[in-house]
Amino acid sequence: MGSSRAIEDCLGWAARDESGVLSPYKFSRRAVGGDDVSIKITHCRVCYGDVFWTRNKYGDAKYPVVPGHEIAGIVKEIGSNVRGFKVGDHVGVGFYVSSCRDCPFCNDALEVHCEKGAVHTFNGIDIDGTITKGGYSNYTVVHERYCYKIPDSYPLASAAPLLCAGITVYSPMIRYKMNEPGKSLGVIGLGGLGHMAVKFGKTFGLNVTVFSTSISKRGEALSLNVDKFALTKSFDFIIDTASGDHPFDAYMSLLKTAGVLVLVGAPSEVKVSPASLLLGMKTITGSQVGGTKDTREMINICATHKIYPEIEVIPIQYVNEAIERLIKSDVKYRFVIDIENSLK
Amino acid sequence: MGSSRAIEDCLGWAARDESGVLSPYKFSRRAVGGDDVSIKITHCRVCYGDVFWTRNKYGDAKYPVVPGHEIAGIVKEIGSNVRGFKVGDHVGVGFYVSSCRDCPFCNDALEVHCEKGAVHTFNGIDIDGTITKGGYSNYTVVHERYCYKIPDSYPLASAAPLLCAGITVYSPMIRYKMNEPGKSLGVIGLGGLGHMAVKFGKTFGLNVTVFSTSISKRGEALSLNVDKFALTKSFDFIIDTASGDHPFDAYMSLLKTAGVLVLVGAPSEVKVSPASLLLGMKTITGSQVGGTKDTREMINICATHKIYPEIEVIPIQYVNEAIERLIKSDVKYRFVIDIENSLK
Repeated sequence: MGSSRAIEDCLGWAARDESGVLSPYKFSRRAVGGDDVSIKITHCRVCYGDVFWTRNKYGDAKYPVVPGHEIAGIVKEIGSNVRGFKVGDHVGVGFYVSSCRDCPFCNDALEVHCEKGAVHTFNGIDIDGTITKGGYSNYTVVHERYCYKIPDSYPLASAAPLLCAGITVYSPMIRYKMNEPGKSLGVIGLGGLGHMAVKFGKTFGLNVTVFSTSISKRGEALSLNVDKFALTKSFDFIIDTASGDHPFDAYMSLLKTAGVLVLVGAPSEVKVSPASLLLGMKTITGSQVGGTKDTREMINICATHKIYPEIEVIPIQYVNEAIERLIKSDVKYRFVIDIENSLK
Repeated sequence: MGSSRAIEDCLGWAARDESGVLSPYKFSRRAVGGDDVSIKITHCRVCYGDVFWTRNKYGDAKYPVVPGHEIAGIVKEIGSNVRGFKVGDHVGVGFYVSSCRDCPFCNDALEVHCEKGAVHTFNGIDIDGTITKGGYSNYTVVHERYCYKIPDSYPLASAAPLLCAGITVYSPMIRYKMNEPGKSLGVIGLGGLGHMAVKFGKTFGLNVTVFSTSISKRGEALSLNVDKFALTKSFDFIIDTASGDHPFDAYMSLLKTAGVLVLVGAPSEVKVSPASLLLGMKTITGSQVGGTKDTREMINICATHKIYPEIEVIPIQYVNEAIERLIKSDVKYRFVIDIENSLK
């Protein structure tokens, strides 16, 4: 397929095979369409999803794969129909860059659940048949619907992790009304997702408890101002961000009647006793990223309440090592690539 | 313990040991208190719960056990404070006969979830310390709060199965808004619970599909006027009434985005892939019986729309055989004991 526009003026880093090793790669982006925004990328977060696709863990890698779906940058050009953005605006792009825009989910601003399938920001098949290429690159072109305004006061480096990690915990927190002060929230796992759940929970006035198997995380939890770091009963909600296997019945027993456990991590299986659901009409539900409306709302809440993800900023030349550290959980809590200053 | 009232004027059938064999047994009921209703029992349904407790499957049987928690009858005496009932009223009693009446759940008419524990209709510890005795008996005394008016037009024999089986499916159907016409409902298992879910679903204008491993149930499903009896995609809701083990991922894949599977049966475990929850923000939740408000509402809907459980009426002398048949699933769909005409 390929674009008719031959100029390979976009510089990125791509994986060429299942080794996942990233190296410089030049390619072309589509011309800026009427509804498109062209963005000079300043930052891109390193997400575990980048590892899955660059190493072909799902078996659908379309090499070369330019990863990155938590993108922050500055608008450098807009299409003739674009009304929501102007050149110079700070913006973000998240997990998906297109959808049918016509199904009930799209109409409800839940584009990630688009009936025809949302187009993933990288390794996805775009409307023109080309393979999407992500944010480990110096610019991108996106339909304005999937582009989010970042307030000027909010650091672009911090904005990047909001666009997948942040929205993944924020969206179910709103859906399940975890924003009512005084309610109690348990957070399983204190990593990239978990620490954002803690920050949102504290902002919403919840009593937050972190469950972690790492004693080493106790100090971190305290520095995040969580209320407890021990098992106690009676939670209204639990957000489960852990991707390692763990027993569910024990956590379900900590939920109050009508309590909800939201799974956002990916252990190998979810296994519970029926009694964990039947007695006390408890719920296990899952959530994946979030829609555009929620994303806009979350960014504004983060700006208003000065909620910033904990990040470690790295140059693109460090990305292969960063991915190895990510796999070993040796990061608190997110690597963000300084695209603007290092990708040249 | 025992009541100070020595007259053993209540005739029931009780299990004396873990054999669960039932035989006649005389005992006393408490005097009718100010808030109590005394009920001449006409019918009691045989529930699988009766088997569990009479055979001590939960390890907490307090013999002699007089089972039965789906009771229908006629008011024969009322306490001085009772305003909701008069002598001669047709009434029902369900799974529980007392609760603290002071916690948030009781205040919300969700007494079955009472923070201090709802008092089970039999084998429970009553407020006076005595062991509650159920509906396999010729009369009972119950606080009026846990007593439900049955419209005169509704057969008492049919009313009995509403009070546990009926409310167990009705309550989550209302909680999860399965009463919006045009939505699609899958029902796993076509037994006592499942056939009531089908009847409610049809009354609410849902498109109902039955999932059953028994081909023999196909004809039955058609006679219940279900819309389909085959696997098809795209359900808003699934009610899982099956107590045998079965795979969950297959059913989860049939749910639409944001679909809900409500577990009301009791398989040995619930095991799903995280993807079954994450992709499409799907939910598995449990439910147990229901509160007093829902129960009243359900009875009125059943009377208005002439929704009747399918029953087989038996004399008390047949109850041991009926229980054996129940264990072998050899009943369509509920045994109801004709207490009035056979227990003498």
